[in-house]
Amino acid sequence: MEIELINTGSELLLGRVLNTHQQWLCRRLADLGHTVARQIAVPDTARDIQQAVREALARAEMVIVTGGLGPTSDDITRDLIAQLLGKKLMREEAIIAHIKNYFAARNRPMPANNDVQAMVPEGAVVLPNPNGTAPGLAMAVNPNLFRADGKPAWLVMLPGPPRELRPMFDDSVVPILRREFPQETPFACRTLRTGGVGESAVQEKIQTSLAALVADGLGIGYCARVGQVDVRLTARGPAAGKMVGVAEAVVQRLLQANIYGYDDEEIEQVVVRQLAGKKLTLALAESCTGGAIADRVTNVPGASAVFLGGVVSYANSAKEQLLGVPVETLRQHGAVSEAVAREMAAGAREKFGADFALAVTGIAGPGGGTPEKPAGTVFLALAGASGTAVERKLNLYEREAFKQLTAQQALEMLRQRLAAS
Amino acid sequence: MEIELINTGSELLLGRVLNTHQQWLCRRLADLGHTVARQIAVPDTARDIQQAVREALARAEMVIVTGGLGPTSDDITRDLIAQLLGKKLMREEAIIAHIKNYFAARNRPMPANNDVQAMVPEGAVVLPNPNGTAPGLAMAVNPNLFRADGKPAWLVMLPGPPRELRPMFDDSVVPILRREFPQETPFACRTLRTGGVGESAVQEKIQTSLAALVADGLGIGYCARVGQVDVRLTARGPAAGKMVGVAEAVVQRLLQANIYGYDDEEIEQVVVRQLAGKKLTLALAESCTGGAIADRVTNVPGASAVFLGGVVSYANSAKEQLLGVPVETLRQHGAVSEAVAREMAAGAREKFGADFALAVTGIAGPGGGTPEKPAGTVFLALAGASGTAVERKLNLYEREAFKQLTAQQALEMLRQRLAAS
Repeated sequence: MEIELINTGSELLLGRVLNTHQQWLCRRLADLGHTVARQIAVPDTARDIQQAVREALARAEMVIVTGGLGPTSDDITRDLIAQLLGKKLMREEAIIAHIKNYFAARNRPMPANNDVQAMVPEGAVVLPNPNGTAPGLAMAVNPNLFRADGKPAWLVMLPGPPRELRPMFDDSVVPILRREFPQETPFACRTLRTGGVGESAVQEKIQTSLAALVADGLGIGYCARVGQVDVRLTARGPAAGKMVGVAEAVVQRLLQANIYGYDDEEIEQVVVRQLAGKKLTLALAESCTGGAIADRVTNVPGASAVFLGGVVSYANSAKEQLLGVPVETLRQHGAVSEAVAREMAAGAREKFGADFALAVTGIAGPGGGTPEKPAGTVFLALAGASGTAVERKLNLYEREAFKQLTAQQALEMLRQRLAAS
Repeated sequence: MEIELINTGSELLLGRVLNTHQQWLCRRLADLGHTVARQIAVPDTARDIQQAVREALARAEMVIVTGGLGPTSDDITRDLIAQLLGKKLMREEAIIAHIKNYFAARNRPMPANNDVQAMVPEGAVVLPNPNGTAPGLAMAVNPNLFRADGKPAWLVMLPGPPRELRPMFDDSVVPILRREFPQETPFACRTLRTGGVGESAVQEKIQTSLAALVADGLGIGYCARVGQVDVRLTARGPAAGKMVGVAEAVVQRLLQANIYGYDDEEIEQVVVRQLAGKKLTLALAESCTGGAIADRVTNVPGASAVFLGGVVSYANSAKEQLLGVPVETLRQHGAVSEAVAREMAAGAREKFGADFALAVTGIAGPGGGTPEKPAGTVFLALAGASGTAVERKLNLYEREAFKQLTAQQALEMLRQRLAAS
């Protein structure tokens, strides 16, 4: 069974907004074991929307269309789809009542144009929208209308705003999927997230050992980002869970120290969980990452239980005044040096009274390098009760990627220390 | 002329990664006056990629394919497209040399599988990749192969990593667009970015005054995000530049204080430029934003000339120890209060010896609120030579959006102060 996703909205094709529906819906569907075979974005024009829906219904057993259900003149999805499927639009009084209540609860008058949201194609299922006015719609499509094989298909229409779409998907679309498309064969999926190894090196390390499983139907996908490679293992069939489990054990054995997390986990979540589990606290001293590590750590719910704070010591004077780095160390070794990284970490640990402190100092470039310390040079330091360790890296990336990679490496250094202890 | 965008990658359809290429490429193309008619994401399977490319080449005059040019087994775009277009793949020694240099500069051995990236379809233009190993490729497609009308079309293949794709698009694809698809009629586009006003209020303020220009062909687009509304003005035709210029002056006059930037400018870029122009320095004291403001400021090239540093004072002890907030103020007013915000800003200004200091303290929620200070309450403080100002906000968003909106508001407070002085 294949699903296709159609995102409508001229603003998407003008690049004014980021399409977050794709990732969210695809992730949810993949976790349920369904395959999204294609995602398409089209502008709010009748020709494009109808063409995209017609083509998708010829291929997929479920087509999910997002956007264009609101009350304004560019909200045309409902009409176009009713026309395409040859369905009359009927006014549903229950929806009018819901919209009236929605505005009444907010002490606002209901604008007249909201009426169109109560029009429902004949035979469609109305998907309630507790977080907005436009309901979603779902309908079985005449099997002989678009498909050569006469298989049944479903068309689902969801409103554009994420806070309306997401709960509606979970509450109303998932039950339809379970009822109409029960899974014939089990599906299993596991993603192992690694740091510190390149994509081709990861592949070289695990490929041969997984060859026999691949021959039996194991799927391996690699997804590389700055400083990280995800290895995604999938299988389908009665032995899917076992096959993915065996493959995971192989990858575990071969990449052990480089695996920082599983599935959706980010390294900052792993580190916050590790610290919380051991009731330990963290402080930061960031120079070249400029607050990027603190930003990531504080994105994790519950970070306040382990994260005391940090100093972004961009100027040398801040390294002296706020972290207590001796002016002599700065003068003798330079701000980007092992000695200064060490003092920054020790200083942050002391000032915040934390169990651990991570410090980073480096040259983002493109300027500022020397033959001994070229642009991209970074020193990472981790101070703990047993002393301070320093690592040197060469991160040849432009500004934002440089910051993200350095942040990832610093968090990885802490993760490995916590995992070992 | 129409352009279609095909993003390849099974990870996209599994929801493992967010597709940022769509927004970035669509924005760039739209601002150059081109229409992206459709965007499609397909998994890394031969059937899906070839089908999507074949269909797109039947409709569009340029098809841009992203991803699948790397060295691993799921990087199959190059091969599939050569096959589809009936082109042989030839090994280019210059690319091998580039890849060898790339690894040598990083003191890493070149894995053998990197060789495949040097394979180029006959007649293709190689697009250099200074930021990675896989070059891009561009080629004119045989006009009679896919199109009924025999019009020429171009196929462009770009590598998946954004830090490789973006400069390659600007440096190598834009010149091909200019040469192969010169605009028949001039196109002009200007985006004015506003903060602190809602979408319908922005529209109400400018709509009537622009009505005559709209009747003459001016396009106005509104795009609302958390805390910001972009107004995009476009025109096509011999007088396009003049029309957009007149419209811009009208919007300037009506929204003056709320306009923070133009086109792709972010508020942190504006603030760094303002500070640099006045030779003033900045320090930060962040509680609920957790380093997000520092991270944004330090993303701006040249930030080190004006940004001295910041304290992420997540724990109350950090507010006392590092910013000198009196324990009595914390006890009496609570960490989220006007008094504490004021002390944080004054403390940061003094500790860093900065001309200005911004401070934020708030309750991200969902927990932690009281009837007097519900979750979402934020105090922003700006300390300067002439004293400290404090603003109170209620930001009802989930964790990450809350941090971003609060950061935006704090930077806007500084921008307005600098603009007024």
